[in-house]
Amino acid sequence: MRTSVYRFFTTDPADVSGLVRAIAEGVINPQSIVAIIGKTEGNGGMNDFTRTLAMMAVSQVLATHLDCRPELVEERVVLSFSGGSEGVAAPHILVFAVSGRAAEQAYPIKRLALASAHTRPFSAQEVGRMAMVRETARAVTRLMHTLQVEPADVHLVQIKGAIPAPDSTTTGNVRDEHLRCDMAWSRGASALGVALALGEVTESELSDDVINQDWSLYSSRASVSAKPLLQRSEMVLFANSCWWEGDLVIAHGVMQDIIDVPAIHAVLNQLGLQPVNGQLADVDTKKVLAVFAKSDADPRGHIRHRRHTMWTDADISDMRYSRCVVSALLAGITGETGVYVSTRAEHQGPQGGGPVAVIGYAS
Amino acid sequence: MRTSVYRFFTTDPADVSGLVRAIAEGVINPQSIVAIIGKTEGNGGMNDFTRTLAMMAVSQVLATHLDCRPELVEERVVLSFSGGSEGVAAPHILVFAVSGRAAEQAYPIKRLALASAHTRPFSAQEVGRMAMVRETARAVTRLMHTLQVEPADVHLVQIKGAIPAPDSTTTGNVRDEHLRCDMAWSRGASALGVALALGEVTESELSDDVINQDWSLYSSRASVSAKPLLQRSEMVLFANSCWWEGDLVIAHGVMQDIIDVPAIHAVLNQLGLQPVNGQLADVDTKKVLAVFAKSDADPRGHIRHRRHTMWTDADISDMRYSRCVVSALLAGITGETGVYVSTRAEHQGPQGGGPVAVIGYAS
Amino acid sequence: MRTSVYRFFTTDPADVSGLVRAIAEGVINPQSIVAIIGKTEGNGGMNDFTRTLAMMAVSQVLATHLDCRPELVEERVVLSFSGGSEGVAAPHILVFAVSGRAAEQAYPIKRLALASAHTRPFSAQEVGRMAMVRETARAVTRLMHTLQVEPADVHLVQIKGAIPAPDSTTTGNVRDEHLRCDMAWSRGASALGVALALGEVTESELSDDVINQDWSLYSSRASVSAKPLLQRSEMVLFANSCWWEGDLVIAHGVMQDIIDVPAIHAVLNQLGLQPVNGQLADVDTKKVLAVFAKSDADPRGHIRHRRHTMWTDADISDMRYSRCVVSALLAGITGETGVYVSTRAEHQGPQGGGPVAVIGYAS
Amino acid sequence: MRTSVYRFFTTDPADVSGLVRAIAEGVINPQSIVAIIGKTEGNGGMNDFTRTLAMMAVSQVLATHLDCRPELVEERVVLSFSGGSEGVAAPHILVFAVSGRAAEQAYPIKRLALASAHTRPFSAQEVGRMAMVRETARAVTRLMHTLQVEPADVHLVQIKGAIPAPDSTTTGNVRDEHLRCDMAWSRGASALGVALALGEVTESELSDDVINQDWSLYSSRASVSAKPLLQRSEMVLFANSCWWEGDLVIAHGVMQDIIDVPAIHAVLNQLGLQPVNGQLADVDTKKVLAVFAKSDADPRGHIRHRRHTMWTDADISDMRYSRCVVSALLAGITGETGVYVSTRAEHQGPQGGGPVAVIGYAS
Repeated sequence: MRTSVYRFFTTDPADVSGLVRAIAEGVINPQSIVAIIGKTEGNGGMNDFTRTLAMMAVSQVLATHLDCRPELVEERVVLSFSGGSEGVAAPHILVFAVSGRAAEQAYPIKRLALASAHTRPFSAQEVGRMAMVRETARAVTRLMHTLQVEPADVHLVQIKGAIPAPDSTTTGNVRDEHLRCDMAWSRGASALGVALALGEVTESELSDDVINQDWSLYSSRASVSAKPLLQRSEMVLFANSCWWEGDLVIAHGVMQDIIDVPAIHAVLNQLGLQPVNGQLADVDTKKVLAVFAKSDADPRGHIRHRRHTMWTDADISDMRYSRCVVSALLAGITGETGVYVSTRAEHQGPQGGGPVAVIGYAS
Repeated sequence: MRTSVYRFFTTDPADVSGLVRAIAEGVINPQSIVAIIGKTEGNGGMNDFTRTLAMMAVSQVLATHLDCRPELVEERVVLSFSGGSEGVAAPHILVFAVSGRAAEQAYPIKRLALASAHTRPFSAQEVGRMAMVRETARAVTRLMHTLQVEPADVHLVQIKGAIPAPDSTTTGNVRDEHLRCDMAWSRGASALGVALALGEVTESELSDDVINQDWSLYSSRASVSAKPLLQRSEMVLFANSCWWEGDLVIAHGVMQDIIDVPAIHAVLNQLGLQPVNGQLADVDTKKVLAVFAKSDADPRGHIRHRRHTMWTDADISDMRYSRCVVSALLAGITGETGVYVSTRAEHQGPQGGGPVAVIGYAS
Repeated sequence: MRTSVYRFFTTDPADVSGLVRAIAEGVINPQSIVAIIGKTEGNGGMNDFTRTLAMMAVSQVLATHLDCRPELVEERVVLSFSGGSEGVAAPHILVFAVSGRAAEQAYPIKRLALASAHTRPFSAQEVGRMAMVRETARAVTRLMHTLQVEPADVHLVQIKGAIPAPDSTTTGNVRDEHLRCDMAWSRGASALGVALALGEVTESELSDDVINQDWSLYSSRASVSAKPLLQRSEMVLFANSCWWEGDLVIAHGVMQDIIDVPAIHAVLNQLGLQPVNGQLADVDTKKVLAVFAKSDADPRGHIRHRRHTMWTDADISDMRYSRCVVSALLAGITGETGVYVSTRAEHQGPQGGGPVAVIGYAS
Repeated sequence: MRTSVYRFFTTDPADVSGLVRAIAEGVINPQSIVAIIGKTEGNGGMNDFTRTLAMMAVSQVLATHLDCRPELVEERVVLSFSGGSEGVAAPHILVFAVSGRAAEQAYPIKRLALASAHTRPFSAQEVGRMAMVRETARAVTRLMHTLQVEPADVHLVQIKGAIPAPDSTTTGNVRDEHLRCDMAWSRGASALGVALALGEVTESELSDDVINQDWSLYSSRASVSAKPLLQRSEMVLFANSCWWEGDLVIAHGVMQDIIDVPAIHAVLNQLGLQPVNGQLADVDTKKVLAVFAKSDADPRGHIRHRRHTMWTDADISDMRYSRCVVSALLAGITGETGVYVSTRAEHQGPQGGGPVAVIGYAS
């Protein structure tokens, strides 16, 4: 088995010309596509419809080739678009394809492996609670088995967290203190599910009470967004496996705060890449194929004891600022502006920080 | 003579508590203050009144000590506030004071020297034209004489460019193609004036036609904002001089594009500072006292052949984005979020790039 | 012949459920649809992709029924979406259908008639010039003939103005003073084309020089947006005709400035509607089916000698403000928030004002 | 006694030229000024420093004349500035002065009377609770006694609500469910205090539980903003009194929702003003001297069963939208853009609506 990753820079959220051409030219076999992850140029908020537009455009392309209705493409391929390409970030889509067959014996070096899964459907009452943590952990664990990898081999678990519609027996009262069915809770519980599966936290440390409360508990490899009306969480797990071949590898690290440049260097170093004067040389920039990170404007209002104003600006959301900052650092260090930064990182790295993962060509 | 620089982080644009305390405690002699340069948390646009507020607050403090009316403080001290602390940038003010007397012989090492000046008043017709270029160059040259420095010693010329009110004989018609009396023209002509004085461009290369047109001509040391209704341009020139003593030095460089991290490293290297894994160690971060840069979202819409969306976002100005990006890089590399980034850099560095200057403690 | 208008309020830009249901239930015959005009909740700027999303969603629905590929739907039906539902405006789509056959003799009362057309393709050099004015006028005139109406019968000409891609012989230099190929020029010339066809201006008053320059020349019935890369302008003309039957009529008026409430009352009065204490009673609100207006924040910076701040706010575009204002007034007076307000009204009403048209049930 | 009101349109938040001139010319006696209320062009959010700037500018002017330090002016004059002049609203300041002496017998007609007061200092624990409701009611009642007016005579109680700094025994934990010390709670409890004093609600209907919960309880005459770090609430009560003379009167009404135009008409009618075709004629516009309103984007997401998008727009705050809408309606109906609209109206009118008060010249 081997993973192929294709990166297409887009001219707008509906631009699927790169994908269309690659399929037409036989470069990509549409049947082999496992996931498409993209960065669009919206605002990343509730009224960001660039994600819907990209989904619709990609679904139309794949529907033809998978011979299904566009709305059923998502049953077969994980489609995950994140809005917000603030600052230098270049909107792009990443197509992940898997081909070949299971190896009969382990290869000498580990290569990029990936697989996707769904959790079972959640009820509104389960979101943001241990039920979601445990089911997420179960799905992650199962994916590790599928890929024959250990927790240490896992470098990224990209999740779209469920936010089921409240059922008829659930009140929609926003003051209902018992219901946690919103974006922040879905993200937090999903991330702790990853942490649990990867052994980053133990079952005994967890309870409903610590979710979105005890920020010392976190995963360094979870990257979660949440999507209203999604019943089941969707996930793609990225690992390095000695049962997979190819020329790609993945590495990860954790930014301890939003300007933790050394953490980014450390990730590149794992891939055998060494920035020179703070930035990869052109030849090494070309070895970087995908960069993922979560960002957060520290809610305590300070970065290294200095005040920041990302939360007090009534005109621009902290989310847009934090994506802009982390994108700038990733682009500045790698020399590549095609970076995927998504925001709000509950239990994904420490408070004010966040995880970083990079897929690159093996050196 | 020696230059002292005091940095105060502020809680809001009107916060002068640090300055007040330093004067009260005798740390700063108000008579010695030459310039106060600050970063406030506004939007940097036409309706950014945080600058006015900071000016008013600082002027009130100094008026008492200089025994003049608040509105006359600016006659004696250059006050320059730039709005926009996007992302990680921490609002702060820098107080520049000069003390001591002229050295009788040169010191063995050059130290930070500075002096301020005004141009003569401009007419609306002169703005954006060779008259402004030449008069700015003349004022810069005179300041170099004052400080006894050569062009190579100059590392930053901070200018507030004039935009005089059109006189009664000038039509206010925005279609008047002959009048260049706006912010972009004032910045461009002022920057070329610095370039001319410093020998970065020659007189023969210059004409009315090349201003804000031929972007190959630029200064690597000009940092210009423009201020409506200002009759004379104000400037502060920063150099290293062997006639000055103290523990401070300044260095500069030019970012060739908005993610030119190596250029920032090079500036730090000149100060004897070497980032480790991309960032200064804590002990070296403390040696960084002031960081100045100009930023620009490349108007050609691309950064290293990748699309960026800073100009096509109808909700957030390119100016806020570019300041956010450059602030993130400077903070990420120095470990210090107290950085001063101002935007729109006509003839200040190449198109899409901009100059960077750092004042630090001599190693 | 008769015109039917169906209004569907949407839950998001891709919501076509109302249209789908109406077709499924036989209420709307898809073959009879002439135009679909909608208001989506984007920002109305360059990065507003809600329009594209709505177009794609509607095209998919119609493609099935018209038995053509989605991208060819626009050849047969005018699709026009305007982004920006600021303030109280409720996003909605209006489906315009025509049925029946030509009357053999005139009816005693005039009823709503409409027809659509394209101009010929424009070159980049023609945009914003008399060539565009004249060709637009020609197309409008032809539509009046088609509908057998006089200029006085025409109450709205909704245009999507062409902005062809510059051809290879045209320089893309933004300083090229001879090329007018942008949104403002396309809107201005198209509006004057309507004015010419409707006799609101005379040929002798027009020249390349007056376009977007002499604001005393305008149409009270043009409503133009411009669309990059559109080769031909598309238009829908709305009139009252004695050759058409049905229960709908249209009326129009011109707001002289952005708070010209009496102008809105006058339009309603033409439809036999009389606001009580400034607002239509519920029973009359129900008679209002479609409300169209163009808005502009007066570029002179004043409204009735008072300053406004719509142009000096660096955080929010004047376009969003002016749509918000006019939508509030229209909704406040009609009692209906389903209003369509589009902004930037060059030669569409006087400077700072704009045209208003209302389609209602005949009283 | 008589009230004089002076309105000055401003060129920026620091513009006090009108006030300075009026004092210099003897039109305004600075000793007679009771309150200055103004609308500035900020964003009305946490980072809106236009209010501070206006306060500082006005305080400097008054300090000279009242012979006190600028920071003590607020002890003697209520200064209240509200940021946000969205859309057509013209930034302006209103100076309220009281002169003359107590009447010996009642006049035949009631005229505008006003007085200001402070509550006692609040503790952080009292904010948003019955303690604040009762103390606010007590202060309002006392002001009615001072002015010798009945509840029915009161038309506006403008309050700046206290938000004391938490004392050392109070935890700053934002999850502390027992502390209500924020803006929304301060506004809600203050408004209910007014309602209680004016008999709009009864003591028996009130409890800690109904505050910011039972929206059927409200005052039609409270207009409250809240100010962090304010220990005591400040208020100005406006009434019509038969013990006051002059040419000014005040009237009020309640908008039931954000497009309740008839409610605005009703207020004008009380002043003897009748809009013609929805707008006051010029001669009547001149009789309108001050217009106050509170606005709210209905948090239920609908206006008259239609969706609105003011809460789902991630780029523009609902607060800016709702002020823009209500300002547009008030300006459209009165013909005067110098309107004061402030947002977030907990218990100030029904949910989604808000109170309106107008001061005019007696007809």
